[in-house]
Amino acid sequence: MGKSIAINAGSSTLKYKLFQMPEEKVLSSGAIDRIGLGSSLVEIKYDDGKKYKDTIDIDNHEQAIQLVLDKLLSLGIIKDYNEITGVGHRIVAGGEDFHDSVVITDDVLKKIESLTDFAPLHQPANVLGIKAFKKILPNVISVAVFDTSFHTTLPEVNYTYSLPYNYYSDLGVRKYGAHGTSFRYVSQRAAAMLGKPLKDLKLVILHLGAGASIDAIKDGKSFDTSMGFSPVAGITMATRSGDVDPSALQYIIDKSDVKDMNEMIDILNHKSGLVGVSGVSADMREIEGVMHENHRAMLAREIFKNRIIRYIGSYVAEMGGIDALVYTAGIGENDIMIRQEVSDKLGYFGIKVDPKKNDIRGVERDLSADGSTTKTLLIPTDEELMIVRDIERLRKTEQK
Amino acid sequence: MGKSIAINAGSSTLKYKLFQMPEEKVLSSGAIDRIGLGSSLVEIKYDDGKKYKDTIDIDNHEQAIQLVLDKLLSLGIIKDYNEITGVGHRIVAGGEDFHDSVVITDDVLKKIESLTDFAPLHQPANVLGIKAFKKILPNVISVAVFDTSFHTTLPEVNYTYSLPYNYYSDLGVRKYGAHGTSFRYVSQRAAAMLGKPLKDLKLVILHLGAGASIDAIKDGKSFDTSMGFSPVAGITMATRSGDVDPSALQYIIDKSDVKDMNEMIDILNHKSGLVGVSGVSADMREIEGVMHENHRAMLAREIFKNRIIRYIGSYVAEMGGIDALVYTAGIGENDIMIRQEVSDKLGYFGIKVDPKKNDIRGVERDLSADGSTTKTLLIPTDEELMIVRDIERLRKTEQK
Repeated sequence: MGKSIAINAGSSTLKYKLFQMPEEKVLSSGAIDRIGLGSSLVEIKYDDGKKYKDTIDIDNHEQAIQLVLDKLLSLGIIKDYNEITGVGHRIVAGGEDFHDSVVITDDVLKKIESLTDFAPLHQPANVLGIKAFKKILPNVISVAVFDTSFHTTLPEVNYTYSLPYNYYSDLGVRKYGAHGTSFRYVSQRAAAMLGKPLKDLKLVILHLGAGASIDAIKDGKSFDTSMGFSPVAGITMATRSGDVDPSALQYIIDKSDVKDMNEMIDILNHKSGLVGVSGVSADMREIEGVMHENHRAMLAREIFKNRIIRYIGSYVAEMGGIDALVYTAGIGENDIMIRQEVSDKLGYFGIKVDPKKNDIRGVERDLSADGSTTKTLLIPTDEELMIVRDIERLRKTEQK
Repeated sequence: MGKSIAINAGSSTLKYKLFQMPEEKVLSSGAIDRIGLGSSLVEIKYDDGKKYKDTIDIDNHEQAIQLVLDKLLSLGIIKDYNEITGVGHRIVAGGEDFHDSVVITDDVLKKIESLTDFAPLHQPANVLGIKAFKKILPNVISVAVFDTSFHTTLPEVNYTYSLPYNYYSDLGVRKYGAHGTSFRYVSQRAAAMLGKPLKDLKLVILHLGAGASIDAIKDGKSFDTSMGFSPVAGITMATRSGDVDPSALQYIIDKSDVKDMNEMIDILNHKSGLVGVSGVSADMREIEGVMHENHRAMLAREIFKNRIIRYIGSYVAEMGGIDALVYTAGIGENDIMIRQEVSDKLGYFGIKVDPKKNDIRGVERDLSADGSTTKTLLIPTDEELMIVRDIERLRKTEQK
């Protein structure tokens, strides 16, 4: 059929993954860091193990994309630009309008740009990525895949904050959530592993990466999710606080050198969470390396587990049950101890993980011990695969 | 033994309850509203049903207390000030220092004043009440009973926010909770009703008044609680928001006429919650009166129930189980429908309420249906009784 590329553009980064379709074989993946910051880092993986690395100055996303395409040619991964027959872009904010991925028309692009206020750092980079690919590959189908669209099924009672209502009706302040593409992929895999229709399952999915969120899936749809209006809410993350009493923030502003709420929000995003509590690192591996000698490192990790356990309990209560708990993303796929310790606290919910089955990283597997009434699954996420699948799905709809 | 009086002083209010001890018989109770605001309202109940009402100008808390004492005399409730042998004050903020109620010495009073920043509206009124009684009844034992002291048993993992750690170590920013006197009373009654030592029970207590919070009690102690650094956090309340994504607040400040975080915090305290969502009323009875014709009233009530259910689930998960769910305070004691609807969602936790037993207001009763594995109790709270009991307990310690 052709090759499809999934693009994830951040403010100074560009990540891609190129697939041969419909085989869904990964031909190449790579990342460019420090775009526009000088000494940009280029890393390209291809041919099942080969790696190309370089450090050069890349001024903007268009240059970055041009470079990627050039390298795909010069490394022999593609022989012609025209082999790329689909481009899919990860978009952070989809607001209330985008309930599914869409083919990017001029109108769609305008709408995406109009949602910049909901993701002021990410959305402009996403838009730059779209425009750069449209320029270089003008005739190729281009698809937007939103982090939020999976959560547009949230019931009103779950997405509405207990604030004066006009902040929702006039300003769009509500829970939007994130990691929707990951939850969509993982929930489908979970249903396949369990051999049941997704719509008949009550799932709690733990997407535990540097950014982390928890999703409750019921009737085949996202029912509740721990991130809120922004990614700052929910569970404790690498550098983000998760839930915190807003009055405490005003108190900190009054009593410290933090000058205003804008600065406070920056602290909540970048200096809180694991790194804020531990004072050691935002990386769980480094925290685990020192936790037996460092009380605050141990505390940060205990808080991380505790907030996960609280959210699982709240979602079991909301859904009136749970069929399976699913671990995914960096920590979820690789931190054997965290998985074991969290699961060990959840015996009340019929959850029991077999330590032998759990002694694994990054492999799809049922971790449940014999006799557990609720399944525990490990499912490595694959947002890029979801994106290229969406390209093919929407291409078919377009052709009808 | 004598008569003891429990005092609850707010910024413009004074409530009291006078008990004959050790019989714990209520001799009189009353309230003065609009202190310092002109046309102050005085209401005094006595002699099991008699009521005295008046509207006069009362300038300050000392005048208010003098008036109460005068009325106690003139209405024949006491014959002499000296009959009052103990005064107990409800104090909102006890910080980390006060793990129990204490006899108020000069040092204690200074410490209480030093905690004003943690409760800027309530603490000064509490202090005024203490000083006024000390002046009028200088030789009577005076006891401080803190809303927070019951929660000083919270484990570090539950009271620490995922913020930079110095905000805790330098500024005292942590979860303090509230309604501790109510939770203490209700947990003791629950243990008595269940015929088991409190230390062997896992309880979730729903204190649902205009201010509302939920407490998890384990090993006889407060284990987690839904209010946070301030009373704004936790579940949806009459006018308070409960938990909300802080980024949403900054967004509102950016996009609306709310000028800063101080104004926003005021909105979170006074214009959010039930009244904010419904646009109808902060009073659950009024909301229930219109909810079938008014979508936002229905939504506000659904959100109220939902947040309660979420917190119950999170506490069951944290504690690894639940022996009993307990309803108390205004809505908890009187809103039969809310109790039934919340409980009906909790079948997964072995909770089942018998609609016939539940058809009652303000009476201590086991509401559990036959066959429910987790008990559901209705226990009217009595913070004032707890306060006067503390007076007697501390008087004995003093005399040793």
